Amino acid sequence: MENRTEISSLGEFGLIEHLTKNFEIRQASTVLSVGDDAAVIDHFGKQTVVTTDLLIEGVHFDLMYTPLRHLGYKSVVVNVSDIYAMNATPTQITMSIGLSNRFSVEALDEFYEGVYAACEKYNVDLIGGDTSASQKGFIISVTALGEVTPGKFVKRNTAQKGDLICVSGTVGGAFLGLTILEREKKIYLENPQIQPDLENEKFIVGKLLKPEARKDIIEFFEQNGIVPTSMMDVSDGVSSEVLHLCRQSNLGCRIYEEKLPVSEEAKAAAFKFGLDPTACALSGGEDYELIFTLKQEDYDKITLQEEIAVIGYMADLEEGRKILTKGGNSFDITAQGWNAFQQ
Amino acid sequence: MENRTEISSLGEFGLIEHLTKNFEIRQASTVLSVGDDAAVIDHFGKQTVVTTDLLIEGVHFDLMYTPLRHLGYKSVVVNVSDIYAMNATPTQITMSIGLSNRFSVEALDEFYEGVYAACEKYNVDLIGGDTSASQKGFIISVTALGEVTPGKFVKRNTAQKGDLICVSGTVGGAFLGLTILEREKKIYLENPQIQPDLENEKFIVGKLLKPEARKDIIEFFEQNGIVPTSMMDVSDGVSSEVLHLCRQSNLGCRIYEEKLPVSEEAKAAAFKFGLDPTACALSGGEDYELIFTLKQEDYDKITLQEEIAVIGYMADLEEGRKILTKGGNSFDITAQGWNAFQQ
Repeated sequence: MENRTEISSLGEFGLIEHLTKNFEIRQASTVLSVGDDAAVIDHFGKQTVVTTDLLIEGVHFDLMYTPLRHLGYKSVVVNVSDIYAMNATPTQITMSIGLSNRFSVEALDEFYEGVYAACEKYNVDLIGGDTSASQKGFIISVTALGEVTPGKFVKRNTAQKGDLICVSGTVGGAFLGLTILEREKKIYLENPQIQPDLENEKFIVGKLLKPEARKDIIEFFEQNGIVPTSMMDVSDGVSSEVLHLCRQSNLGCRIYEEKLPVSEEAKAAAFKFGLDPTACALSGGEDYELIFTLKQEDYDKITLQEEIAVIGYMADLEEGRKILTKGGNSFDITAQGWNAFQQ
Repeated sequence: MENRTEISSLGEFGLIEHLTKNFEIRQASTVLSVGDDAAVIDHFGKQTVVTTDLLIEGVHFDLMYTPLRHLGYKSVVVNVSDIYAMNATPTQITMSIGLSNRFSVEALDEFYEGVYAACEKYNVDLIGGDTSASQKGFIISVTALGEVTPGKFVKRNTAQKGDLICVSGTVGGAFLGLTILEREKKIYLENPQIQPDLENEKFIVGKLLKPEARKDIIEFFEQNGIVPTSMMDVSDGVSSEVLHLCRQSNLGCRIYEEKLPVSEEAKAAAFKFGLDPTACALSGGEDYELIFTLKQEDYDKITLQEEIAVIGYMADLEEGRKILTKGGNSFDITAQGWNAFQQ
């Protein structure tokens, strides 16, 4: 039988000690970590980048098909992704969780295994947090800190007309992974005897459940002397993010449908569900890829980088924000609304 | 009739714009604020102090008797209090909220009025956050950043034998304020016709609903060349915090009951409820006063400071951690357990 240790048996400080005792410090800048009123960070002449995310069970994740280890990993990844999206390097995180007494210490250990795996992968220190009871559901709040050479951070509102619009990796996969998991959940709820078969969907299910932040792209920029003219991460879908870059930079754009990087696995899944792969790539969120603009003269620096696709260019405001389809048509780019409060 | 604007009518970015448009930047170190993937902070040779807190409706606050404006204010205060408890100066906060659709834009405005009032009072910038739907209840996650001259931060584990144990302001008031509000809530639920009369309880109700962080004490230290040997804020009660300082510094202590600073209002309320004021002072939380230890030679520097009470001294580990009562008895100091998960 599985062990179940009640969280109440450890007490708050016993729990914090239990969760953090094997965690080593990786960053020289971490002067003081978990265990006091606050943590202390030194800077050595760098600027600090700060971002935060709140993840709520039933809104941002479904524990029915999200392993706790993956959830812990992803909670860190979505935040370090925002740090990379500033062209900065993540260095520390704080992790606050609220959980009901249906969670055991063993369940929490699984979650933290994922948190620590992500901290190791992205070389960040967990320096603090808050552990609280919740009345219902699992609540995760992460703040990530990063560092950047003064003035080298990349904002959203600094794209220029004519700049190339680029996307890392592939997009739309996480949305199709979600579609598959929601279907399997429905089948399971109707007939718990049927075991889900996700063997052929590992890639897109992985894009959703265990995304990676594009540390490699930021390192590629550094190594090749590239500074994007604007950048953000793809959390709400390419359409939504392209519109952000356009609005904040006060520009229009052209996106080419045929240039959107969609994986073969995502195309196959879209086919199976009768969905348009382009719509999935434009409107599906949670890919945590980077979308950025480059000066045209930097084009030669990225031609050999297979993980970067040029999908279009920034245009004058008057030219609108349009996607040119494979069939030769042109449509205005629209973003999905923010529907969370309308459900 | 009261206006009610649905949050969904603004959309996520409209809401963020609505909530942050009138907020001005106060700190020179805030290089980039709300509106990008992350905020950017410069340091000018200082070290950064980081703390975070998660506040959940029904666990940490009851909206039945907590005005949203006060809640916004307190959410900031409890975090800047942790920054002061490091002998540091708060500079920036991030504010993430999760809320169900029972909240209107007007309700959220009230909450942010309190947030902004606290930011003004404590001279901090709101530099980011996350706004999310919740399935149930109001969730608040705040991270506060502060700055300190390198090496000047004060930890919990550095008290020395013989050091004086000091407390700012008065303690026990917030707990008695809570006791009164819980009683009034019960009366109201039984008979909604009866209006609560809190006129005589303003001070202690205020200690609970609108606490202040002890910025003045940190400034007093600075002005008088005092560096406490250890320090933390009083969020769980004096007993609990004294034990933290003792355990982390590997020492014992003596506390004198007669020296515990309890306000006249708290004493009167304790009398009315048949509670022991000393028990309220030792075990009641949420006062957000500072508890700290000083070298004996610093005693002369605080004798004229009415907001600081010396309540005892640090002793050898072997001497135990004891409170000496007015009646001449000696008891071991015990902390309330962490009962959140046992409810």
